[in-house]
Amino acid sequence: MALLEPLVLYTAKICPFAHRVELALAETGLKSNKDFERYEIDLKNKPVWYQPKINPASKVPAIAYGGPKVTGDQPSSESTKLAESLVLLEFVADLFPNSHLLPKDPVLRAKARFFIDAFANKFAPASFAFQGGKSTNGAEGIFSAIEQLQDLMPPEGLAIGDGKDFTIADAAVVPFFARMEVSLKNDFGVYPEGEGKKAWETLQTDGRFARWRKYWETVKARESFKTTFDEDYLTKQYSTRWTRA
Amino acid sequence: MALLEPLVLYTAKICPFAHRVELALAETGLKSNKDFERYEIDLKNKPVWYQPKINPASKVPAIAYGGPKVTGDQPSSESTKLAESLVLLEFVADLFPNSHLLPKDPVLRAKARFFIDAFANKFAPASFAFQGGKSTNGAEGIFSAIEQLQDLMPPEGLAIGDGKDFTIADAAVVPFFARMEVSLKNDFGVYPEGEGKKAWETLQTDGRFARWRKYWETVKARESFKTTFDEDYLTKQYSTRWTRA
Repeated sequence: MALLEPLVLYTAKICPFAHRVELALAETGLKSNKDFERYEIDLKNKPVWYQPKINPASKVPAIAYGGPKVTGDQPSSESTKLAESLVLLEFVADLFPNSHLLPKDPVLRAKARFFIDAFANKFAPASFAFQGGKSTNGAEGIFSAIEQLQDLMPPEGLAIGDGKDFTIADAAVVPFFARMEVSLKNDFGVYPEGEGKKAWETLQTDGRFARWRKYWETVKARESFKTTFDEDYLTKQYSTRWTRA
Repeated sequence: MALLEPLVLYTAKICPFAHRVELALAETGLKSNKDFERYEIDLKNKPVWYQPKINPASKVPAIAYGGPKVTGDQPSSESTKLAESLVLLEFVADLFPNSHLLPKDPVLRAKARFFIDAFANKFAPASFAFQGGKSTNGAEGIFSAIEQLQDLMPPEGLAIGDGKDFTIADAAVVPFFARMEVSLKNDFGVYPEGEGKKAWETLQTDGRFARWRKYWETVKARESFKTTFDEDYLTKQYSTRWTRA
């Protein structure tokens, strides 16, 4: 597949929201820094032009699409600037309507979007609460959110339909599962020491999460995941981020 | 336009989220209770079958799509049950890909979705805070959210593109503006008496909101709005809902 217009993705390796869009682009077969420019934003020291010229909200991810071919650090006023990770996932799917990022069937498309909604409303808040030491029932919120997502999945493979195609539903959740794995197995968080490792052990062994484990193995074996996720980098960054009192 | 499969919309006149989907269906030209069944759910006294058979979250809106032709109160296990208002807006657009509910251009589609995101992240919380008496700066949160939405609109007409087509961006916000109007002009809320009426007066007269006023007039003149919004009913319902301390 090929892009009709120049595309710059403003992203940051650490950010799960930005990772969503990197996965979607990779799944279309586009190559980073060949078919589009991947521009890493240092979130702790953003370029002065980023907020005024790319994203008024100053967040990643953002996309500059169209206009003359320019480098990411010389944005053109003629390109369209787009933001918000879920908007961008749909945008990538719309750029490539014949990719597998969204099924053709309206019902399956609705299921993909419902899966993302369930994730955003349940898993994301439970995960943030646990890591920030604000959960009142340990990792149970994470566990029950994962069970809810399992209930929406087919028996094998990826999240939607027959599980064979990687869709925006997968792109939306995978970055958060990847960061959960790094956080839990290294005990990165402000919960009592050892609780992260214990939760990870439960996710690895308890029969409740058998479907999720299969899902996670399937995802990690994909080229799109391997080329967009840098576990060592993330581990190093996260190791200094959470300070236990 | 015609549906390929039977469709039942579970909705409630009072609910802005459900109203979104009624607007989208009306804009495709489908007639309520002719081309699809509109099933009113009494939110204070839901049918016992609603939560187990239609929506595990027990909320409106929900859609039953496909399966045998049945009445809304006799749901078939063979139909697909779908929920969440924004998922359903996309679903209606997907059922009618040649309707105007979503533009064809990927960039404009992204702008429609970004508009919804901006609304959800700014207008909705500001409006709930004001009505619930929890705003620390009066109606200013509502005002600045409206200005932000104005900035995303073309100079004339509806929210997206050249303003000529009613899209899911309009369907997503209109129900909330309609309920804001009823609430403010009748002073329904737990803020100090008179503040609602004052805020409505400001929205009606201040130059800051000229674009929004044009937008709101355009929307209210549409058949889809007139056939899906019952101001008298809503005024009566809301009048007993907010009790000032």
